Amino acid sequence: MTADSNKQIRLASRPSGWVTNDNFTLTEEAIPDPADGEVLIRNIYMSVDPYMRGRMNDVKSYVPPFQIGEVLQASVVGQVVASRYDGIAEGDHVMGMLGWENFSVCDGRLLRKVHTGLAPLSYHLGILGMPGMTAYVGLMKIAKAKPGDNVFVSAASGAVGSVVGQLAKIHGCHVAGSAGSDEKVALLSDEFGYDGAFNYRTSKDLSASLREVSPKGIDVLFENVGGEIFEAALWHMRDFGRVALCGMISNYNDEEPQPGPRGMAIIIGRRLTIRGFIVTDKPKACEEYVVKAIQWLEEGKLKYRETIVEGVENAPQAFIDLLKGRNMGKQIVRLSDAG
Amino acid sequence: MTADSNKQIRLASRPSGWVTNDNFTLTEEAIPDPADGEVLIRNIYMSVDPYMRGRMNDVKSYVPPFQIGEVLQASVVGQVVASRYDGIAEGDHVMGMLGWENFSVCDGRLLRKVHTGLAPLSYHLGILGMPGMTAYVGLMKIAKAKPGDNVFVSAASGAVGSVVGQLAKIHGCHVAGSAGSDEKVALLSDEFGYDGAFNYRTSKDLSASLREVSPKGIDVLFENVGGEIFEAALWHMRDFGRVALCGMISNYNDEEPQPGPRGMAIIIGRRLTIRGFIVTDKPKACEEYVVKAIQWLEEGKLKYRETIVEGVENAPQAFIDLLKGRNMGKQIVRLSDAG
Repeated sequence: MTADSNKQIRLASRPSGWVTNDNFTLTEEAIPDPADGEVLIRNIYMSVDPYMRGRMNDVKSYVPPFQIGEVLQASVVGQVVASRYDGIAEGDHVMGMLGWENFSVCDGRLLRKVHTGLAPLSYHLGILGMPGMTAYVGLMKIAKAKPGDNVFVSAASGAVGSVVGQLAKIHGCHVAGSAGSDEKVALLSDEFGYDGAFNYRTSKDLSASLREVSPKGIDVLFENVGGEIFEAALWHMRDFGRVALCGMISNYNDEEPQPGPRGMAIIIGRRLTIRGFIVTDKPKACEEYVVKAIQWLEEGKLKYRETIVEGVENAPQAFIDLLKGRNMGKQIVRLSDAG
Repeated sequence: MTADSNKQIRLASRPSGWVTNDNFTLTEEAIPDPADGEVLIRNIYMSVDPYMRGRMNDVKSYVPPFQIGEVLQASVVGQVVASRYDGIAEGDHVMGMLGWENFSVCDGRLLRKVHTGLAPLSYHLGILGMPGMTAYVGLMKIAKAKPGDNVFVSAASGAVGSVVGQLAKIHGCHVAGSAGSDEKVALLSDEFGYDGAFNYRTSKDLSASLREVSPKGIDVLFENVGGEIFEAALWHMRDFGRVALCGMISNYNDEEPQPGPRGMAIIIGRRLTIRGFIVTDKPKACEEYVVKAIQWLEEGKLKYRETIVEGVENAPQAFIDLLKGRNMGKQIVRLSDAG
């Protein structure tokens, strides 16, 4: 993190199976100059998110794949060093889809100004950013949770899941969830207000665990994991239940597409709706959420956990840890000082 | 089919895997007398339907399982021989959930009068009955087909699928489908107005076949089959596509629940909605449909195919043939003369 060069993380090779440090390479070059209409940003925080795994494959999806040799992209919040774009000035805080690097140059039109003071800067990458918005859109707009619904969240302690549970409680739902360590499970009950929670890695009988934490069955399933826990939860759904399909992290590192849950005819018998979604399809709901979330944070109704690692050179490991479920709460990388 | 005794088909044993004739037994007893509030019906036509396979297992579902030793149930249309229920008279034509038998006694409240003259009696078990209603509800209310949508129907030539395709054409959609024999595929194009069709049993590459018949991709998938064709169709969906999950006949005879389609993360990337449904949940839409269907039949906009076998003793084989896909159009059993 020197002030006069730009460290960058580039994609060295496409992973087959689990991502390793070998898939990344650290390079260093001069800090770029902004062209007309562009802005130079000193990057402060960057987010690593599960969806990035998909972009490492050479597959067309809703976001284009990362290219080998290129600097990887991430949601970044930073401060403007120099601006050649009207409406953004030196010293402004902005966020955008920038690089895994210390400094980025970006078309000013693609940046959004961040109001400092409302919340810590890093929150804009988590509870006030895409993960929080994803929780809100999935729960309220896709699964259409109603007060009294029994909500179940897989990956309940993560950046998205921890917000889903708290929003569901605010909304008057019964909320249960699963997570991948006893420490995370404790966090669900003690910090995020879950009514029930279990460790899906140590559960000997997922169905029995589900019956225990969601004794009435599941009306709304917020699904982030896929695999066995998705199947067990599906079989535990109540009539007319809704599934917001947000992610399937258990499959992201598979080299071959994995089969879906067994016994999908249950979707017919129980009249279930399974709906995949991408948060950016619902920009109005996102704006609506941020206003509410700032207030809930102030009132102490929403709590938030981050794991912050230091330095762009540690971003690959932070991302690998995220995919392995080693993080507690939202995984963030600090690229330079906030002050 | 004698007039003075009642031949009945009872469940002899629960099938494991494919249904065989040994799972049924033919008995004969005296024609019953109706008690107060009951009606005695001479059964004329009965329907065999794929969902009955589920009722042969001892599993709680949206309809209770058939019991060993009991007369099997079916949708039946018949004529009243004797009535001890106000509002239904001798000679009336009625339909209801009656037995695989020549005569049934039924609580009058559970019967529905059938208006003869509008269409052949047997149509009330097919295009004007549950299969036709299922097609309408699934296409219009569950998948919410819009004019211009690209609709794909698996099991396209069956009792439900043949109606789905025709309704979609009336509604201004592009319609393609798959069926399990060349004869059925010919019927799809020649009789039911499908824009494209292929034989899924002989296709060497389901994805290529789908690209050929639905070159723009699929907006609405009416899914009756499950298994490989479901997976291939799912991967061929367009963004924001909707799947009406009506049945999974390819799995009904499996002893263990089969895995779902591979690569379900595509549901997220393409923002798909998969919705299971049961036609009886939408009684208003069913009534709405029957009025329209009678008119479309008169105008020649809806065409209909039946396979009718004679005699209750042949009902088990008719049902087995249905599960094996040997029927052309709606499979009906004639139990006595319509006149």
